[in-house]
Amino acid sequence: MATPSLLLSRRDLDFQLYTWLDTEELTHRDRYAEHSRETFDDALTLSERIAGEHFAPHNRKNDLEEPWFDGERVHTVPEAAEALKVFADSGLLAAAVGPEAGGMGLPHTVTTACFAWFQAANIATAAYPFLTLGNARLLGAHGSPEQIATYVQPMLDGRFLGTMCLSEPQAGSSLADVATRAEEQPDGGYRLFGTKMWISGGDHELSRNIVHLVLARIPGGPPGVKGLSLFIVPKYLVGPDGSPGERNDVTTVGLNHKMGYRGTTNTLLAFGEGTAFRPGGAAGAVGELVGEPHRGLAYMFHMMNDARIGVGAGAMALGYTGYLKSLRYARERPQGRPLRGGPGKDPRTPQVPIVEHADVRRMLLAQKSYVEGASGLLLYCARLVDEQHSAPTPEARARAGLLLDVLTPIAKSWPSQWCLAANDLAVQVHGGYGYTRDHDVEQHYRDNRLNPIHEGTHGIQGLDLLGRKAVMQDGAGLRALGEAVGRTVERARRAGGEAARLADALAGAWQRVVEVTARLWQDGPGGATTALANSTVYLEAVGHVVVAWIWLGQFLAADGAPAGAAARPADAAFLQGKRQAARYFYRWELPRTRVQFALLESLDTTVLDTDPDWL
Amino acid sequence: MATPSLLLSRRDLDFQLYTWLDTEELTHRDRYAEHSRETFDDALTLSERIAGEHFAPHNRKNDLEEPWFDGERVHTVPEAAEALKVFADSGLLAAAVGPEAGGMGLPHTVTTACFAWFQAANIATAAYPFLTLGNARLLGAHGSPEQIATYVQPMLDGRFLGTMCLSEPQAGSSLADVATRAEEQPDGGYRLFGTKMWISGGDHELSRNIVHLVLARIPGGPPGVKGLSLFIVPKYLVGPDGSPGERNDVTTVGLNHKMGYRGTTNTLLAFGEGTAFRPGGAAGAVGELVGEPHRGLAYMFHMMNDARIGVGAGAMALGYTGYLKSLRYARERPQGRPLRGGPGKDPRTPQVPIVEHADVRRMLLAQKSYVEGASGLLLYCARLVDEQHSAPTPEARARAGLLLDVLTPIAKSWPSQWCLAANDLAVQVHGGYGYTRDHDVEQHYRDNRLNPIHEGTHGIQGLDLLGRKAVMQDGAGLRALGEAVGRTVERARRAGGEAARLADALAGAWQRVVEVTARLWQDGPGGATTALANSTVYLEAVGHVVVAWIWLGQFLAADGAPAGAAARPADAAFLQGKRQAARYFYRWELPRTRVQFALLESLDTTVLDTDPDWL
Repeated sequence: MATPSLLLSRRDLDFQLYTWLDTEELTHRDRYAEHSRETFDDALTLSERIAGEHFAPHNRKNDLEEPWFDGERVHTVPEAAEALKVFADSGLLAAAVGPEAGGMGLPHTVTTACFAWFQAANIATAAYPFLTLGNARLLGAHGSPEQIATYVQPMLDGRFLGTMCLSEPQAGSSLADVATRAEEQPDGGYRLFGTKMWISGGDHELSRNIVHLVLARIPGGPPGVKGLSLFIVPKYLVGPDGSPGERNDVTTVGLNHKMGYRGTTNTLLAFGEGTAFRPGGAAGAVGELVGEPHRGLAYMFHMMNDARIGVGAGAMALGYTGYLKSLRYARERPQGRPLRGGPGKDPRTPQVPIVEHADVRRMLLAQKSYVEGASGLLLYCARLVDEQHSAPTPEARARAGLLLDVLTPIAKSWPSQWCLAANDLAVQVHGGYGYTRDHDVEQHYRDNRLNPIHEGTHGIQGLDLLGRKAVMQDGAGLRALGEAVGRTVERARRAGGEAARLADALAGAWQRVVEVTARLWQDGPGGATTALANSTVYLEAVGHVVVAWIWLGQFLAADGAPAGAAARPADAAFLQGKRQAARYFYRWELPRTRVQFALLESLDTTVLDTDPDWL
Repeated sequence: MATPSLLLSRRDLDFQLYTWLDTEELTHRDRYAEHSRETFDDALTLSERIAGEHFAPHNRKNDLEEPWFDGERVHTVPEAAEALKVFADSGLLAAAVGPEAGGMGLPHTVTTACFAWFQAANIATAAYPFLTLGNARLLGAHGSPEQIATYVQPMLDGRFLGTMCLSEPQAGSSLADVATRAEEQPDGGYRLFGTKMWISGGDHELSRNIVHLVLARIPGGPPGVKGLSLFIVPKYLVGPDGSPGERNDVTTVGLNHKMGYRGTTNTLLAFGEGTAFRPGGAAGAVGELVGEPHRGLAYMFHMMNDARIGVGAGAMALGYTGYLKSLRYARERPQGRPLRGGPGKDPRTPQVPIVEHADVRRMLLAQKSYVEGASGLLLYCARLVDEQHSAPTPEARARAGLLLDVLTPIAKSWPSQWCLAANDLAVQVHGGYGYTRDHDVEQHYRDNRLNPIHEGTHGIQGLDLLGRKAVMQDGAGLRALGEAVGRTVERARRAGGEAARLADALAGAWQRVVEVTARLWQDGPGGATTALANSTVYLEAVGHVVVAWIWLGQFLAADGAPAGAAARPADAAFLQGKRQAARYFYRWELPRTRVQFALLESLDTTVLDTDPDWL
């Protein structure tokens, strides 16, 4: 028997995709009619294999030999280019985009699971194609047919890679302050001038071209975010035959050197500032407008849900592989003797594997509840994307969109917080070994620390959830979520027994979400300063309630799993583990929200009242 | 005016040492009669200066150019040796040990504050003398006069550095399994054979000699921890004239490469395994027995409180400097606009410093409450050490020892957990910048991650608190702590107003500690498996209650500060900040314990019931 993978658990993915989420049902819809359980499984198997064989082996090397810039070129470890070649040849990227962008349109549910293998194996190398995917999907939705042909097709083939260029040195979280300008030319094209910061994958030689999607301001437009337009700015101008030619005026000023996630270059880029590159002799970086002027942020927002779910999935994958690695370590590492033997603890008896110690089991069970809860949340959100594309009625599609909007800040932030916490526990289970660079877990911990920062910081997600998503359409998003929670509660109550007891706890917690949200907004938008002061606490509390709901769904699915499944001892243990992790979450995790809701309900102003001079 | 230090706040240290803890009162005791407020202040000022000038500048270099081993010698950055030379010349180490070991006996309270400057500046370089101090104190207490003359004096001068050698590859947390053996020689000396792991400072060329204190087993002794004896094993044998001569048979097998704390070498050492070094031609590493055979662990335990408080102090110092750096960043970094301006958020208005945003202030206030709470806890514990040495009555000295015993696992673990959380928030306040190696905070975060692991893992501290300290002498330690808490509660109630309300909250929380402890041990030692299963939760809950108590003390001290102090605006703001951080802790942090106590009280067996096969 082969060693079980230490990246993700295929057994769990199968459970989540098929037993819980009934992903196979999608194949009955027109959009996915060419697919089947077999094509889904083939994609998963292929992903597991390529991730294990071509991505995992250079994960540590990516970290030890981070990309460097010689003033002209960026150097990366050769294994990254080889892995991306294999990935491109696999057709997985093309499989992941819809027919509107020339792809094969595997459901998001399946591709999210597929890509998690790569994120678990080597999140830094995997970032290149996944950033490209976001870019390609955006252009597929808003680009012209020519732009799709020129830029998207080569990205799906792996010849080009893509980036998103939003932040600037003076404008990170505050996009209203983006200052890069795009000047229209007599021929209808644009020239861009400005500096972009924190651009992941902004320079490298891993592909023949780099397609930057750049937010910039056309002079004369409105101030703030309403004056932002979106441009395609390739590193090399693409000739009529589709091949990259003259160098565009996009200059790498430098690379950021990060705590983790080191294999993904992170760049400071200057547009239209170069002296070496002046396309056609004129100043500025050549850019093509995407869609209409001043609609750039709206287009970006279209993809924001995707990108944020992608961040959550990366956090989950890092947490997941850390969990599996610490589990294996705990099963193999002998140390100490159990209390169970009474005062004995006889040093002449053999030591036991540390998984026998209660505190180690606690750390493993907590990790399991975080990473399997997070993967459930992310697969559920991915399923909502598929529902948006394929649900039978317009109402169902709209409802999926609403749910997705309200869940996205949680899908981004919850795994970023709790799967990082899982990595922290994975380090702790390893003891001193976990603190050394001989074991993977310390790298996962460092890599994962990026996730609460990029694609909207943790705090920004809180403002998004409470300040926007909870109140949009007069609270329709939260109501839709409440209905979804209510349906699971009903099912669990019908099932009775332990499921019904968990359902009562969940229903009570959801009731608190409703009450506390109303209380926070009791003064309407005029009370925003007070309401939003503690929005991070709101984000974290609602996140825990949502994941408790996900766990109740998995608990029910485990209870309802085909009888034959549980007949095999390994499967019976797996299903017991599912139930136990759900119990853990309800007994140990959900109660944390009581304190958070009480704080929120009190409209606590401790933070608001703090004069900066007191700090 | 000079830029305020970003290592620690001297204003706060002065407040904690003098306004709150009345450290000056110690100078009226015989043991400290040669000291005065002036000698204390001179030591603090000297520490701040040397730490800032000689330790801080190479902190990042320590990380980027970690020590390496060429197979024969260990190389460290030259700045580390220079800093240690300045430190040795300062006499601070000699000041820190009592007269029994030839030192000047500054109170622990003062030296803990002094050394925190070095830990904040460069914890990796500072580790060498601080490990040496633990070694010197142990030998001062248990070594023979000859051993003190031969080894301790050169350590106080900085000529020798010291280590503690406990762990072995198969025996990390489980000292019962230590296998290194010490064979008595015809001349009464010993030869040691075995391998020691995780030895910090185990090899380097920063001093003329390295004095290893080694736990080993004399053949024929009892099994387990009762058969461990303590030996001095120098790297170079010391000649009659006190100078290092022939190489002893202690071989460096290799260095561990860590996530952080990189400047401190961490070694795998082989004793008596070398072929190159055979002192006098015979096999084995030459060792001198300390004290009596089989009493090694007891001697080590004598110093364990010190070492664990030192770990807590290091965690606190890293948290403190991260807090100050993120505070400065938040005051200087413009980004976005406050909600307070209403729907305006006009992009044509200037951006504001991010400290104006509520969520950033939350992250700063939380850090402040963690780091100043931790420093209070550690200075209080250091004061207990001084009370052990100098309290006027034997009863008072015994009570101080009892309190110290019960507080030590908390003083080690609470800062390791929450000042790491502070570093996490410091990274978050910095946004993307905090994730780069251009800012210190990412290194503090990595460095601090060691602290929940070494000197007894977090889980071991929980077992120590609940399984040993809470029940020792029929609960006398916990009762002594309860009395100390009760005295603060009484003072606060007499003060009335807000202080009395905080006192009520604290008294209620302490009542829960008492009830829950009784509940956990309701079945006596026979119920240990259940009682101890969730001991980490107990540790964390009691820790929060203890720090709430520390904060109430500081709140009262701020209220009672000399009227003149608050008349200066900066002082008024400082005292407001103290009160606000205390409020934050009571409103945001202490309530977390409600959920933890409820879980403990339920004698939850979720973890115990989890079959390892379910994971």
